[in-house]
Amino acid sequence: MEYTVVILGAGMVGSTMARDLAGHFRVTSVDVSSAALTTLKEADPRIEVQVADLSDPEVIKSIVQPFDLVVGAVPGFLGRTMFQAVLEAGKNIVDISFPPQDLQTEFNSLAEAKGLTALIDCGIAPGMSNLLLGFFNSRMQIHSFTCYVGGLPDVRTLPFQYKAPFSPIDVVEEYIRPARLIRAGSRITLPALTELELLEFPEVGTLEAFNTDGLRSILNTMSHIPNLSEKTLRYPGHCQLMQTLISAGFFSTEPVKANGSLVRPIDVNAQVCLAAWKKSPNEPEFTIFRATAEGTRDGVEVKESCDIFDRYDPETKVASMSRTTGFTATAIVHAFFKGLIPQKGVLALEQLAANPGLFDHVLEHHRSRKVRISLRI
Amino acid sequence: MEYTVVILGAGMVGSTMARDLAGHFRVTSVDVSSAALTTLKEADPRIEVQVADLSDPEVIKSIVQPFDLVVGAVPGFLGRTMFQAVLEAGKNIVDISFPPQDLQTEFNSLAEAKGLTALIDCGIAPGMSNLLLGFFNSRMQIHSFTCYVGGLPDVRTLPFQYKAPFSPIDVVEEYIRPARLIRAGSRITLPALTELELLEFPEVGTLEAFNTDGLRSILNTMSHIPNLSEKTLRYPGHCQLMQTLISAGFFSTEPVKANGSLVRPIDVNAQVCLAAWKKSPNEPEFTIFRATAEGTRDGVEVKESCDIFDRYDPETKVASMSRTTGFTATAIVHAFFKGLIPQKGVLALEQLAANPGLFDHVLEHHRSRKVRISLRI
Repeated sequence: MEYTVVILGAGMVGSTMARDLAGHFRVTSVDVSSAALTTLKEADPRIEVQVADLSDPEVIKSIVQPFDLVVGAVPGFLGRTMFQAVLEAGKNIVDISFPPQDLQTEFNSLAEAKGLTALIDCGIAPGMSNLLLGFFNSRMQIHSFTCYVGGLPDVRTLPFQYKAPFSPIDVVEEYIRPARLIRAGSRITLPALTELELLEFPEVGTLEAFNTDGLRSILNTMSHIPNLSEKTLRYPGHCQLMQTLISAGFFSTEPVKANGSLVRPIDVNAQVCLAAWKKSPNEPEFTIFRATAEGTRDGVEVKESCDIFDRYDPETKVASMSRTTGFTATAIVHAFFKGLIPQKGVLALEQLAANPGLFDHVLEHHRSRKVRISLRI
Repeated sequence: MEYTVVILGAGMVGSTMARDLAGHFRVTSVDVSSAALTTLKEADPRIEVQVADLSDPEVIKSIVQPFDLVVGAVPGFLGRTMFQAVLEAGKNIVDISFPPQDLQTEFNSLAEAKGLTALIDCGIAPGMSNLLLGFFNSRMQIHSFTCYVGGLPDVRTLPFQYKAPFSPIDVVEEYIRPARLIRAGSRITLPALTELELLEFPEVGTLEAFNTDGLRSILNTMSHIPNLSEKTLRYPGHCQLMQTLISAGFFSTEPVKANGSLVRPIDVNAQVCLAAWKKSPNEPEFTIFRATAEGTRDGVEVKESCDIFDRYDPETKVASMSRTTGFTATAIVHAFFKGLIPQKGVLALEQLAANPGLFDHVLEHHRSRKVRISLRI
């Protein structure tokens, strides 16, 4: 029997997942853009395509009906509505929509009651970061865990030295939203862009890291760990520039009057950043990731870590951010059909790390797609 | 006989001039804002006030009729129309409106034909810079003249370390408009913010200087000098920040779409700067100025210079920029009535520097008002 998978969204990551899954399952991609679907169909004719408005929950409920599994890859602002519709339609889901809301708290009972497996945040960070935290947590008494992650262009162009793989306003909001973290056993918030540190990476040299609000489900599921942080990686200098822009008011949400119309600086300047942060076609970029866990095992101090590094693939022309995000989700899709995820409910990957075979399966899945993973344990 | 002077505009500098002239002449101030005039009248009841719309040339022609001399102190964008109206009304004028147009080329014949004396750019720079260049030019064969000028807050607040004494969009345009200068005998243009250098000043320490487009009339009247530059002074770091903002597109004049309306980033971000650059009430600030001339006298290399330094006056609560600009113009008003300026036509101060008694009169006028002038000759 061939399993059927429907992928909601044919954006950069949605398309990457469709192409990755097409050789293994019967894949249908759905998107509002027929152009995106035409491109996808040309890349792999085995992929079925369907044009639909995924902002309408009734449309989603009807579309997902015939499928064994749903993969959610809609924009974040549509994520919650889509997720709820899929659960109400009685379907299992692997999600990478990353909506701002806490889907676990809101929908866990519904998923459990319906006997569904709904896996959230199945990307690189969140995603691999969660799985690795769960893995380290099963091996030691962690007292400190930090995840560092960034997607950066090979070519560093001043002043930003940055290209946005997704909407600039989402990046800017990541720089403005206070970072929730756990410090000395208490949940605290710090402004984003704080606690700047410099790290060395063999592939790219020195990068800077600063707090952003990326822990998500971990804040609830791993609250027994006294120190938990997530930090964003950029080329050195980016953080100070963003702090400067923010402190000067360029990303203010207070409207100002410009030539008679009231506009919010953040809306205008996100457009300015859109232009400044736009990738050239097929511009080489990479994804860089480090998770470090410090703690004790049998009373002895231990430190374990994992580095992930991936580059733009010039053959398939797929960005590393799409690869590392998409391949984590497709690894979970395979794991689901292999029976490696028996749990029901809304689950984050840190909760599955002890599942026999799952962790090795995900690492092997990535490595067979040339994502470099260096686990130091 | 008491001379009568009408001052068109009762803004910061216009008010300062009215108060400075009130003890010496019969002064009338005109402005569209009755609030500004009320404040002025309270400061010195000898000042007559009159509310009028100075954007209407017919209004100006009628207002100036009874007066011996007009002082122009309207915003730059109204400057040309006002200036023309005053000449057409047959009146002499001392102007500090600094309009972008070349008034000398356009109106010199008219002023000469009417036998009028019309003195333009009577501020600090342009103004004192022009007078000093004329002075140095009468003393040596100049091969290089540079004028440095800045108005800065005492308190340096990151990121800009700057407060705008006038409209931020005018400051921003000064950073965007190419700088015209003379180099090795040829007129060239360079981007603004170029040729950054650091200078030491005994009163405030290290400042940075960069090219801006401030030479104005000097480009025509002093084109025999092979090297002429004007540079703006700021606290170190400001130039790089402005370059960063400009290169990133924050001051682009290409409209972007933000929440449905088309707006130019420069219009929105000038408003952002308006907030960031707003002076606190009575915030201490200073004006700093240096003009250097290098050349030969009797075949010997000589270097002469002049530093001007002035601080906010806490007694009168008048900003140093208003003082140094306004007192130059009031010095010229006194000089005009003393008969120190016999020339007719549209004239810039470099053309008057050889007038007997004028240079010393202007220096003495400033010094008696506690503006510090250090002439090194």
